[in-house]
Amino acid sequence: MTGLTLVLGGASSGKSDWAERLVDTMDRPKVYIATAQAFDPEMEAKIARHRSDRGGGWQTIEAPQMLTEALSSLPDGHVALLDCVTMWLSNRLLADAPLEEEIPTLLDALDTCNVPVVVVSNEVGQGIVPDNALSRRFRDLQGRLNRQIAERADRVVAVMAGLPLVLKGTLPETATW
Amino acid sequence: MTGLTLVLGGASSGKSDWAERLVDTMDRPKVYIATAQAFDPEMEAKIARHRSDRGGGWQTIEAPQMLTEALSSLPDGHVALLDCVTMWLSNRLLADAPLEEEIPTLLDALDTCNVPVVVVSNEVGQGIVPDNALSRRFRDLQGRLNRQIAERADRVVAVMAGLPLVLKGTLPETATW
Amino acid sequence: MTGLTLVLGGASSGKSDWAERLVDTMDRPKVYIATAQAFDPEMEAKIARHRSDRGGGWQTIEAPQMLTEALSSLPDGHVALLDCVTMWLSNRLLADAPLEEEIPTLLDALDTCNVPVVVVSNEVGQGIVPDNALSRRFRDLQGRLNRQIAERADRVVAVMAGLPLVLKGTLPETATW
Repeated sequence: MTGLTLVLGGASSGKSDWAERLVDTMDRPKVYIATAQAFDPEMEAKIARHRSDRGGGWQTIEAPQMLTEALSSLPDGHVALLDCVTMWLSNRLLADAPLEEEIPTLLDALDTCNVPVVVVSNEVGQGIVPDNALSRRFRDLQGRLNRQIAERADRVVAVMAGLPLVLKGTLPETATW
Repeated sequence: MTGLTLVLGGASSGKSDWAERLVDTMDRPKVYIATAQAFDPEMEAKIARHRSDRGGGWQTIEAPQMLTEALSSLPDGHVALLDCVTMWLSNRLLADAPLEEEIPTLLDALDTCNVPVVVVSNEVGQGIVPDNALSRRFRDLQGRLNRQIAERADRVVAVMAGLPLVLKGTLPETATW
Repeated sequence: MTGLTLVLGGASSGKSDWAERLVDTMDRPKVYIATAQAFDPEMEAKIARHRSDRGGGWQTIEAPQMLTEALSSLPDGHVALLDCVTMWLSNRLLADAPLEEEIPTLLDALDTCNVPVVVVSNEVGQGIVPDNALSRRFRDLQGRLNRQIAERADRVVAVMAGLPLVLKGTLPETATW
Protein backbone atom coordinates (compact mmCIF):
# COMPACT_ATOMS: atom_id res chain seq x y z
CA MET A 1 0.00 0.00 0.00
CA THR A 2 1.30 3.44 -0.94
CA GLY A 3 -1.12 5.59 0.97
CA LEU A 4 -4.85 5.19 1.52
CA THR A 5 -7.18 7.99 2.61
CA LEU A 6 -10.85 7.64 3.48
CA VAL A 7 -13.00 10.78 3.16
CA LEU A 8 -16.34 10.27 4.86
CA GLY A 9 -19.33 12.59 4.80
CA GLY A 10 -23.07 13.01 4.46
CA ALA A 11 -24.91 13.88 1.25
CA SER A 12 -23.86 17.29 -0.12
CA SER A 13 -21.39 17.72 2.73
CA GLY A 14 -18.62 18.83 0.40
CA LYS A 15 -16.72 15.54 0.73
CA SER A 16 -15.95 15.25 -3.02
CA ASP A 17 -14.67 18.84 -3.29
CA TRP A 18 -12.53 18.34 -0.24
CA ALA A 19 -11.14 15.04 -1.54
CA GLU A 20 -10.22 16.72 -4.83
CA ARG A 21 -8.32 19.43 -2.99
CA LEU A 22 -6.46 16.72 -1.06
CA VAL A 23 -5.53 14.97 -4.30
CA ASP A 24 -4.28 18.28 -5.70
CA THR A 25 -1.75 18.57 -2.84
CA MET A 26 -0.14 15.31 -3.93
CA ASP A 27 1.33 16.75 -7.09
CA ARG A 28 0.89 13.65 -9.24
CA PRO A 29 -1.08 12.99 -12.44
CA LYS A 30 -4.68 12.39 -11.41
CA VAL A 31 -7.03 9.50 -12.15
CA TYR A 32 -10.72 9.78 -11.37
CA ILE A 33 -12.51 6.46 -10.74
CA ALA A 34 -16.17 7.20 -11.42
CA THR A 35 -18.82 4.86 -10.02
CA ALA A 36 -22.02 6.77 -10.76
CA GLN A 37 -24.41 5.60 -13.46
CA ALA A 38 -26.87 7.95 -15.09
CA PHE A 39 -30.19 6.09 -15.06
CA ASP A 40 -32.36 9.21 -14.96
CA PRO A 41 -32.19 13.01 -15.50
CA GLU A 42 -31.65 13.72 -11.76
CA MET A 43 -28.57 11.50 -11.71
CA GLU A 44 -27.35 12.86 -15.06
CA ALA A 45 -27.51 16.41 -13.69
CA LYS A 46 -25.63 15.38 -10.55
CA ILE A 47 -22.87 13.68 -12.52
CA ALA A 48 -22.55 16.70 -14.84
CA ARG A 49 -22.31 19.05 -11.86
CA HIS A 50 -19.60 16.95 -10.20
CA ARG A 51 -17.66 16.80 -13.46
CA SER A 52 -17.84 20.56 -13.93
CA ASP A 53 -16.89 21.17 -10.26
CA ARG A 54 -13.76 19.11 -10.51
CA GLY A 55 -12.38 20.87 -13.58
CA GLY A 56 -9.80 19.51 -16.03
CA GLY A 57 -6.62 17.53 -15.57
CA TRP A 58 -8.22 14.19 -14.78
CA GLN A 59 -7.96 10.87 -16.56
CA THR A 60 -11.31 9.14 -15.96
CA ILE A 61 -11.98 5.43 -15.46
CA GLU A 62 -15.64 4.42 -15.42
CA ALA A 63 -16.12 1.68 -12.85
CA PRO A 64 -19.74 1.54 -11.71
CA GLN A 65 -19.46 -2.25 -11.30
CA MET A 66 -15.89 -3.47 -11.95
CA LEU A 67 -14.14 -1.51 -9.23
CA THR A 68 -11.54 -4.06 -8.18
CA GLU A 69 -10.36 -4.31 -11.79
CA ALA A 70 -10.04 -0.52 -11.99
CA LEU A 71 -7.97 -0.37 -8.79
CA SER A 72 -5.69 -3.15 -10.03
CA SER A 73 -4.77 -1.41 -13.26
CA LEU A 74 -3.90 2.13 -12.20
CA PRO A 75 -0.98 3.77 -14.02
CA ASP A 76 2.24 3.97 -11.94
CA GLY A 77 3.16 7.30 -10.41
CA HIS A 78 -0.41 8.61 -10.42
CA VAL A 79 -2.87 9.31 -7.62
CA ALA A 80 -6.46 8.01 -7.76
CA LEU A 81 -9.69 9.50 -6.47
CA LEU A 82 -12.44 6.90 -6.05
CA ASP A 83 -15.75 8.80 -5.95
CA CYS A 84 -17.52 7.06 -4.45
CA VAL A 85 -17.50 3.61 -2.93
CA THR A 86 -21.10 4.12 -1.77
CA MET A 87 -22.37 4.28 -5.33
CA TRP A 88 -20.41 1.14 -6.22
CA LEU A 89 -21.89 -0.67 -3.21
CA SER A 90 -25.38 0.43 -4.19
CA ASN A 91 -24.84 -0.63 -7.82
CA ARG A 92 -23.59 -4.08 -6.79
CA LEU A 93 -26.37 -4.57 -4.26
CA LEU A 94 -28.99 -3.77 -6.92
CA ALA A 95 -27.17 -6.13 -9.33
CA ASP A 96 -27.55 -8.84 -6.67
CA ALA A 97 -23.78 -9.38 -6.69
CA PRO A 98 -22.07 -11.76 -4.19
CA LEU A 99 -20.89 -8.96 -1.90
CA GLU A 100 -19.60 -11.28 0.83
CA GLU A 101 -16.93 -12.29 -1.74
CA GLU A 102 -16.53 -8.98 -3.54
CA ILE A 103 -15.92 -6.79 -0.49
CA PRO A 104 -12.85 -8.76 0.70
CA THR A 105 -11.53 -8.68 -2.88
CA LEU A 106 -12.03 -4.92 -3.02
CA LEU A 107 -10.22 -4.50 0.31
CA ASP A 108 -7.33 -6.61 -1.02
CA ALA A 109 -7.14 -4.39 -4.09
CA LEU A 110 -6.90 -1.32 -1.83
CA ASP A 111 -4.20 -3.03 0.27
CA THR A 112 -2.04 -3.86 -2.73
CA CYS A 113 -2.64 -0.78 -4.84
CA ASN A 114 0.47 0.67 -6.50
CA VAL A 115 -0.51 4.34 -6.12
CA PRO A 116 -2.07 6.54 -3.41
CA VAL A 117 -5.86 6.28 -3.38
CA VAL A 118 -8.38 8.68 -1.88
CA VAL A 119 -11.69 6.91 -1.28
CA VAL A 120 -14.86 8.99 -0.88
CA SER A 121 -17.69 7.33 1.06
CA ASN A 122 -21.02 8.23 2.61
CA GLU A 123 -22.08 8.19 6.22
CA VAL A 124 -25.63 6.76 5.96
CA GLY A 125 -26.31 5.41 9.46
CA GLN A 126 -27.26 8.50 11.47
CA GLY A 127 -30.95 8.70 10.62
CA ILE A 128 -33.98 6.69 11.68
CA VAL A 129 -34.01 2.92 10.94
CA PRO A 130 -35.24 2.58 7.33
CA ASP A 131 -38.58 0.85 6.91
CA ASN A 132 -37.46 -1.56 4.19
CA ALA A 133 -35.06 -4.50 4.45
CA LEU A 134 -32.95 -3.57 1.41
CA SER A 135 -32.16 -0.13 2.84
CA ARG A 136 -31.32 -1.69 6.20
CA ARG A 137 -28.98 -4.17 4.51
CA PHE A 138 -27.34 -1.39 2.50
CA ARG A 139 -26.90 0.74 5.61
CA ASP A 140 -25.31 -2.15 7.47
CA LEU A 141 -22.96 -3.06 4.59
CA GLN A 142 -21.93 0.59 4.12
CA GLY A 143 -21.19 1.01 7.82
CA ARG A 144 -19.04 -2.13 7.88
CA LEU A 145 -17.26 -1.17 4.66
CA ASN A 146 -16.41 2.25 6.09
CA ARG A 147 -14.90 0.58 9.15
CA GLN A 148 -12.95 -1.91 7.07
CA ILE A 149 -11.49 0.83 4.87
CA ALA A 150 -10.80 3.06 7.90
CA GLU A 151 -8.92 0.23 9.60
CA ARG A 152 -6.40 -0.07 6.77
CA ALA A 153 -6.27 3.63 5.87
CA ASP A 154 -3.37 5.91 6.81
CA ARG A 155 -5.73 8.83 7.06
CA VAL A 156 -9.48 9.13 7.77
CA VAL A 157 -11.26 12.47 7.50
CA ALA A 158 -14.92 13.26 8.14
CA VAL A 159 -16.22 16.27 6.21
CA MET A 160 -19.04 18.41 7.65
CA ALA A 161 -20.23 21.60 5.97
CA GLY A 162 -17.12 21.40 3.78
CA LEU A 163 -14.77 21.34 6.79
CA PRO A 164 -12.46 18.45 7.69
CA LEU A 165 -12.41 16.60 10.99
CA VAL A 166 -9.39 14.32 11.21
CA LEU A 167 -10.25 10.92 12.71
CA LYS A 168 -6.94 9.19 11.91
CA GLY A 169 -3.53 10.31 10.65
CA THR A 170 -2.68 13.91 9.75
CA LEU A 171 -3.38 16.40 6.99
CA PRO A 172 -0.65 17.54 4.59
CA GLU A 173 0.77 20.84 5.81
CA THR A 174 1.11 22.21 2.31
CA ALA A 175 -2.45 23.48 2.25
CA THR A 176 -4.89 25.38 4.43
CA TRP A 177 -8.24 23.68 4.93
CA MET B 1 -19.43 41.28 8.58
CA THR B 2 -19.14 41.62 12.35
CA GLY B 3 -18.96 37.97 13.30
CA LEU B 4 -20.82 34.99 11.89
CA THR B 5 -21.16 31.64 13.67
CA LEU B 6 -22.73 28.48 12.26
CA VAL B 7 -24.07 25.95 14.77
CA LEU B 8 -24.79 22.65 13.06
CA GLY B 9 -26.49 19.61 14.54
CA GLY B 10 -28.99 16.82 14.15
CA ALA B 11 -32.58 16.89 15.37
CA SER B 12 -32.81 17.26 19.17
CA SER B 13 -29.03 17.42 19.41
CA GLY B 14 -29.11 20.43 21.71
CA LYS B 15 -27.93 22.84 18.99
CA SER B 16 -30.46 25.59 19.90
CA ASP B 17 -29.64 25.46 23.61
CA TRP B 18 -25.95 25.57 22.86
CA ALA B 19 -26.38 28.48 20.44
CA GLU B 20 -28.32 30.41 23.09
CA ARG B 21 -25.51 29.91 25.59
CA LEU B 22 -23.05 31.19 22.99
CA VAL B 23 -25.19 34.29 22.42
CA ASP B 24 -25.30 34.86 26.18
CA THR B 25 -21.50 35.10 26.30
CA MET B 26 -21.61 38.06 23.91
CA ASP B 27 -23.12 40.41 26.44
CA ARG B 28 -25.31 42.35 24.00
CA PRO B 29 -29.08 42.84 23.76
CA LYS B 30 -30.49 39.74 22.08
CA VAL B 31 -32.69 39.37 18.99
CA TYR B 32 -34.29 36.03 18.18
CA ILE B 33 -35.09 35.48 14.50
CA ALA B 34 -37.79 32.80 14.50
CA THR B 35 -38.46 30.83 11.31
CA ALA B 36 -40.85 28.14 12.54
CA GLN B 37 -44.51 28.23 11.60
CA ALA B 38 -47.14 26.45 13.67
CA PHE B 39 -49.27 24.56 11.13
CA ASP B 40 -50.29 21.77 13.51
CA PRO B 41 -50.35 20.91 17.25
CA GLU B 42 -47.03 18.98 17.06
CA MET B 43 -45.25 22.07 15.71
CA GLU B 44 -47.07 24.38 18.13
CA ALA B 45 -45.86 22.29 21.06
CA LYS B 46 -42.29 22.32 19.73
CA ILE B 47 -42.29 26.10 19.31
CA ALA B 48 -43.74 26.59 22.80
CA ARG B 49 -41.07 24.30 24.28
CA HIS B 50 -38.25 26.16 22.53
CA ARG B 51 -39.67 29.50 23.70
CA SER B 52 -39.89 28.32 27.29
CA ASP B 53 -36.37 26.80 27.13
CA ARG B 54 -34.81 30.05 26.01
CA GLY B 55 -36.30 32.19 28.78
CA GLY B 56 -36.75 35.94 28.75
CA GLY B 57 -34.59 38.79 27.53
CA TRP B 58 -35.18 38.30 23.79
CA GLN B 59 -36.65 40.61 21.22
CA THR B 60 -38.31 38.32 18.66
CA ILE B 61 -38.59 38.83 14.90
CA GLU B 62 -40.85 36.38 13.09
CA ALA B 63 -39.28 35.52 9.71
CA PRO B 64 -40.59 32.21 8.43
CA GLN B 65 -40.36 33.51 4.84
CA MET B 66 -38.79 37.01 4.72
CA LEU B 67 -35.44 36.14 6.26
CA THR B 68 -33.21 38.44 4.20
CA GLU B 69 -35.36 41.41 5.20
CA ALA B 70 -35.07 40.45 8.87
CA LEU B 71 -31.27 40.20 8.66
CA SER B 72 -31.06 43.56 6.93
CA SER B 73 -32.95 45.47 9.62
CA LEU B 74 -31.33 44.31 12.86
CA PRO B 75 -30.89 46.96 15.56
CA ASP B 76 -27.29 48.21 15.97
CA GLY B 77 -25.29 46.92 18.90
CA HIS B 78 -27.37 43.75 19.29
CA VAL B 79 -26.59 40.08 18.61
CA ALA B 80 -28.96 37.89 16.60
CA LEU B 81 -29.78 34.21 16.88
CA LEU B 82 -31.30 32.79 13.69
CA ASP B 83 -33.11 29.57 14.65
CA CYS B 84 -33.12 28.00 12.23
CA VAL B 85 -32.12 28.36 8.61
CA THR B 86 -33.35 24.82 7.92
CA MET B 87 -36.93 25.75 8.70
CA TRP B 88 -36.67 28.81 6.46
CA LEU B 89 -35.31 26.65 3.62
CA SER B 90 -38.12 24.16 4.09
CA ASN B 91 -40.75 26.94 4.17
CA ARG B 92 -39.39 28.52 0.97
CA LEU B 93 -39.12 25.17 -0.81
CA LEU B 94 -42.74 24.37 0.02
CA ALA B 95 -43.73 27.89 -1.14
CA ASP B 96 -42.04 27.07 -4.45
CA ALA B 97 -39.80 30.13 -4.06
CA PRO B 98 -36.95 30.87 -6.54
CA LEU B 99 -34.22 29.55 -4.24
CA GLU B 100 -31.46 29.84 -6.83
CA GLU B 101 -31.93 33.62 -6.46
CA GLU B 102 -32.89 33.78 -2.82
CA ILE B 103 -29.96 31.82 -1.41
CA PRO B 104 -27.29 34.16 -2.84
CA THR B 105 -29.32 37.12 -1.52
CA LEU B 106 -29.46 35.51 1.91
CA LEU B 107 -25.70 34.90 1.87
CA ASP B 108 -25.15 38.57 0.93
CA ALA B 109 -27.31 39.63 3.86
CA LEU B 110 -25.16 37.51 6.19
CA ASP B 111 -21.98 39.00 4.67
CA THR B 112 -23.11 42.57 5.21
CA CYS B 113 -24.94 42.22 8.51
CA ASN B 114 -24.26 45.00 11.02
CA VAL B 115 -24.29 42.79 14.13
CA PRO B 116 -22.95 39.35 15.10
CA VAL B 117 -25.24 36.54 13.96
CA VAL B 118 -25.40 32.95 15.22
CA VAL B 119 -27.06 30.72 12.61
CA VAL B 120 -28.51 27.38 13.72
CA SER B 121 -28.81 24.74 10.99
CA ASN B 122 -29.54 21.04 10.65
CA GLU B 123 -27.34 18.26 9.42
CA VAL B 124 -29.79 16.20 7.31
CA GLY B 125 -27.52 14.21 4.96
CA GLN B 126 -26.30 11.32 7.09
CA GLY B 127 -29.19 8.92 6.64
CA ILE B 128 -30.32 6.72 3.77
CA VAL B 129 -31.17 8.41 0.42
CA PRO B 130 -34.81 9.60 0.77
CA ASP B 131 -37.27 7.88 -1.53
CA ASN B 132 -38.92 11.05 -2.83
CA ALA B 133 -37.46 13.74 -5.07
CA LEU B 134 -38.52 16.71 -2.92
CA SER B 135 -36.69 15.34 0.12
CA ARG B 136 -33.62 14.66 -2.02
CA ARG B 137 -33.71 18.23 -3.35
CA PHE B 138 -34.12 19.61 0.18
CA ARG B 139 -31.24 17.50 1.46
CA ASP B 140 -29.01 18.69 -1.36
CA LEU B 141 -29.93 22.37 -0.89
CA GLN B 142 -29.44 22.15 2.87
CA GLY B 143 -26.01 20.53 2.48
CA ARG B 144 -24.88 23.21 0.03
CA LEU B 145 -26.29 26.02 2.19
CA ASN B 146 -24.41 24.69 5.22
CA ARG B 147 -21.18 24.72 3.21
CA GLN B 148 -21.82 28.23 1.88
CA ILE B 149 -22.49 29.59 5.36
CA ALA B 150 -19.51 27.68 6.82
CA GLU B 151 -17.22 29.13 4.16
CA ARG B 152 -17.93 32.72 5.23
CA ALA B 153 -18.32 32.03 8.95
CA ASP B 154 -15.67 32.93 11.52
CA ARG B 155 -16.71 29.99 13.63
CA VAL B 156 -18.40 26.65 12.85
CA VAL B 157 -19.45 24.28 15.62
CA ALA B 158 -21.11 20.89 15.33
CA VAL B 159 -23.22 19.93 18.36
CA MET B 160 -23.65 16.26 19.31
CA ALA B 161 -25.49 15.19 22.47
CA GLY B 162 -25.35 18.82 23.58
CA LEU B 163 -21.54 18.96 23.29
CA PRO B 164 -19.62 21.22 20.90
CA LEU B 165 -17.12 20.08 18.31
CA VAL B 166 -15.27 23.03 16.82
CA LEU B 167 -14.82 22.73 13.05
CA LYS B 168 -13.57 26.26 12.41
CA GLY B 169 -12.44 29.16 14.61
CA THR B 170 -12.38 29.06 18.40
CA LEU B 171 -14.83 29.19 21.30
CA PRO B 172 -14.99 32.19 23.64
CA GLU B 173 -12.94 31.45 26.75
CA THR B 174 -15.43 33.17 29.00
CA ALA B 175 -17.55 30.06 29.41
CA THR B 176 -17.16 26.34 30.05
CA TRP B 177 -18.93 24.13 27.55
CA MET C 1 -21.57 7.52 40.41
CA THR C 2 -18.40 5.56 39.81
CA GLY C 3 -17.79 6.42 36.18
CA LEU C 4 -20.23 6.83 33.31
CA THR C 5 -19.25 6.73 29.62
CA LEU C 6 -21.54 7.43 26.66
CA VAL C 7 -20.54 5.90 23.32
CA LEU C 8 -22.57 7.43 20.53
CA GLY C 9 -22.62 6.38 16.88
CA GLY C 10 -24.65 5.66 13.78
CA ALA C 11 -25.85 2.23 12.67
CA SER C 12 -22.95 -0.17 11.99
CA SER C 13 -20.47 2.54 12.97
CA GLY C 14 -18.48 0.15 15.17
CA LYS C 15 -19.76 1.71 18.40
CA SER C 16 -20.38 -1.65 20.13
CA ASP C 17 -16.95 -3.04 19.24
CA TRP C 18 -15.30 0.13 20.41
CA ALA C 19 -17.27 0.14 23.67
CA GLU C 20 -16.22 -3.47 24.32
CA ARG C 21 -12.57 -2.53 23.86
CA LEU C 22 -13.05 0.32 26.32
CA VAL C 23 -14.59 -2.05 28.87
CA ASP C 24 -11.63 -4.41 28.40
CA THR C 25 -9.21 -1.69 29.49
CA MET C 26 -10.98 -1.47 32.85
CA ASP C 27 -9.74 -4.83 34.05
CA ARG C 28 -12.86 -5.81 35.99
CA PRO C 29 -15.30 -8.70 35.63
CA LYS C 30 -17.71 -7.77 32.82
CA VAL C 31 -21.50 -7.61 32.76
CA TYR C 32 -23.35 -7.23 29.47
CA ILE C 33 -26.80 -5.61 29.73
CA ALA C 34 -28.62 -6.75 26.60
CA THR C 35 -31.68 -4.81 25.43
CA ALA C 36 -32.33 -6.38 22.02
CA GLN C 37 -35.31 -8.69 21.49
CA ALA C 38 -35.41 -11.20 18.66
CA PHE C 39 -38.81 -10.76 17.05
CA ASP C 40 -37.74 -11.90 13.58
CA PRO C 41 -34.88 -13.69 11.76
CA GLU C 42 -33.14 -10.39 10.82
CA MET C 43 -32.93 -9.37 14.48
CA GLU C 44 -31.95 -12.89 15.56
CA ALA C 45 -29.04 -12.86 13.13
CA LYS C 46 -27.93 -9.44 14.35
CA ILE C 47 -28.01 -10.52 18.00
CA ALA C 48 -26.08 -13.71 17.20
CA ARG C 49 -23.44 -11.70 15.30
CA HIS C 50 -22.99 -9.24 18.17
CA ARG C 51 -22.70 -12.13 20.65
CA SER C 52 -20.07 -13.87 18.56
CA ASP C 53 -18.16 -10.57 18.01
CA ARG C 54 -17.89 -9.89 21.71
CA GLY C 55 -16.45 -13.26 22.63
CA GLY C 56 -16.49 -14.91 26.06
CA GLY C 57 -15.96 -13.57 29.53
CA TRP C 58 -19.28 -11.79 29.92
CA GLN C 59 -22.07 -12.29 32.41
CA THR C 60 -25.25 -11.33 30.55
CA ILE C 61 -28.37 -9.65 31.95
CA GLU C 62 -31.35 -9.51 29.59
CA ALA C 63 -33.12 -6.17 30.05
CA PRO C 64 -35.15 -5.31 26.96
CA GLN C 65 -37.76 -3.61 29.18
CA MET C 66 -36.66 -3.56 32.84
CA LEU C 67 -33.48 -1.56 32.44
CA THR C 68 -33.60 0.47 35.64
CA GLU C 69 -33.92 -2.73 37.65
CA ALA C 70 -30.89 -4.20 35.86
CA LEU C 71 -28.76 -1.12 36.57
CA SER C 72 -29.78 -1.16 40.22
CA SER C 73 -28.66 -4.74 40.85
CA LEU C 74 -25.20 -4.90 39.31
CA PRO C 75 -22.61 -6.99 41.20
CA ASP C 76 -20.04 -4.89 43.10
CA GLY C 77 -16.57 -4.55 41.59
CA HIS C 78 -17.75 -5.25 38.05
CA VAL C 79 -18.06 -3.02 34.96
CA ALA C 80 -21.25 -2.95 32.88
CA LEU C 81 -21.76 -2.46 29.16
CA LEU C 82 -25.32 -1.36 28.32
CA ASP C 83 -25.86 -2.15 24.63
CA CYS C 84 -27.90 -0.27 23.79
CA VAL C 85 -30.14 2.36 25.32
CA THR C 86 -31.68 3.02 21.88
CA MET C 87 -33.17 -0.45 21.71
CA TRP C 88 -34.57 -0.07 25.21
CA LEU C 89 -36.14 3.27 24.26
CA SER C 90 -37.66 1.73 21.15
CA ASN C 91 -38.98 -1.25 23.12
CA ARG C 92 -40.59 0.99 25.75
CA LEU C 93 -42.06 3.33 23.15
CA LEU C 94 -43.66 0.39 21.33
CA ALA C 95 -44.93 -0.94 24.69
CA ASP C 96 -46.59 2.47 25.21
CA ALA C 97 -44.70 2.89 28.49
CA PRO C 98 -44.89 6.16 30.51
CA LEU C 99 -41.50 7.43 29.30
CA GLU C 100 -41.86 10.86 30.91
CA GLU C 101 -41.59 8.99 34.24
CA GLU C 102 -39.27 6.19 33.19
CA ILE C 103 -36.52 8.33 31.67
CA PRO C 104 -35.87 10.33 34.88
CA THR C 105 -35.85 7.04 36.81
CA LEU C 106 -33.34 5.59 34.38
CA LEU C 107 -31.13 8.67 34.70
CA ASP C 108 -31.29 8.35 38.51
CA ALA C 109 -30.21 4.71 38.23
CA LEU C 110 -27.20 5.81 36.14
CA ASP C 111 -26.37 8.53 38.68
CA THR C 112 -26.39 6.15 41.62
CA CYS C 113 -24.91 3.06 39.99
CA ASN C 114 -22.33 1.24 42.11
CA VAL C 115 -20.03 0.25 39.21
CA PRO C 116 -18.68 1.93 36.06
CA VAL C 117 -21.16 1.78 33.18
CA VAL C 118 -20.51 2.21 29.46
CA VAL C 119 -23.73 3.16 27.66
CA VAL C 120 -23.98 2.61 23.89
CA SER C 121 -26.49 4.80 22.07
CA ASN C 122 -27.46 5.71 18.52
CA GLU C 123 -27.29 9.03 16.77
CA VAL C 124 -30.59 9.04 14.81
CA GLY C 125 -31.22 12.75 14.11
CA GLN C 126 -28.98 13.49 11.13
CA GLY C 127 -31.26 12.37 8.32
CA ILE C 128 -34.37 13.86 6.75
CA VAL C 129 -37.41 14.47 9.00
CA PRO C 130 -39.27 11.12 9.17
CA ASP C 131 -42.72 11.09 7.57
CA ASN C 132 -44.51 9.47 10.50
CA ALA C 133 -45.22 10.89 13.96
CA LEU C 134 -43.96 7.87 15.92
CA SER C 135 -40.54 8.07 14.26
CA ARG C 136 -40.42 11.80 14.92
CA ARG C 137 -41.28 11.23 18.57
CA PHE C 138 -38.64 8.50 18.86
CA ARG C 139 -36.02 10.72 17.23
CA ASP C 140 -36.82 13.54 19.60
CA LEU C 141 -36.76 11.33 22.71
CA GLN C 142 -33.49 9.71 21.62
CA GLY C 143 -31.82 13.07 21.02
CA ARG C 144 -32.90 14.36 24.44
CA LEU C 145 -31.85 11.14 26.16
CA ASN C 146 -28.40 11.35 24.57
CA ARG C 147 -28.03 14.89 25.89
CA GLN C 148 -29.24 13.93 29.36
CA ILE C 149 -26.79 11.02 29.58
CA ALA C 150 -23.96 13.15 28.11
CA GLU C 151 -24.57 15.83 30.71
CA ARG C 152 -23.93 13.47 33.61
CA ALA C 153 -21.25 11.35 31.90
CA ASP C 154 -17.55 11.64 32.70
CA ARG C 155 -16.70 10.71 29.14
CA VAL C 156 -18.57 11.02 25.83
CA VAL C 157 -17.18 9.50 22.63
CA ALA C 158 -18.65 9.57 19.13
CA VAL C 159 -17.60 6.63 16.95
CA MET C 160 -17.37 7.06 13.16
CA ALA C 161 -16.04 4.29 10.90
CA GLY C 162 -14.83 2.52 14.06
CA LEU C 163 -12.74 5.52 15.16
CA PRO C 164 -13.32 7.53 18.35
CA LEU C 165 -13.92 11.25 18.53
CA VAL C 166 -13.78 12.47 22.12
CA LEU C 167 -16.52 14.98 22.93
CA LYS C 168 -16.01 15.06 26.72
CA GLY C 169 -13.36 13.72 29.11
CA THR C 170 -10.34 11.69 28.05
CA LEU C 171 -9.53 8.18 26.84
CA PRO C 172 -7.58 5.73 29.00
CA GLU C 173 -3.92 5.82 27.99
CA THR C 174 -3.51 2.10 28.44
CA ALA C 175 -4.71 1.34 24.92
CA THR C 176 -4.23 2.57 21.38
CA TRP C 177 -7.43 3.42 19.55
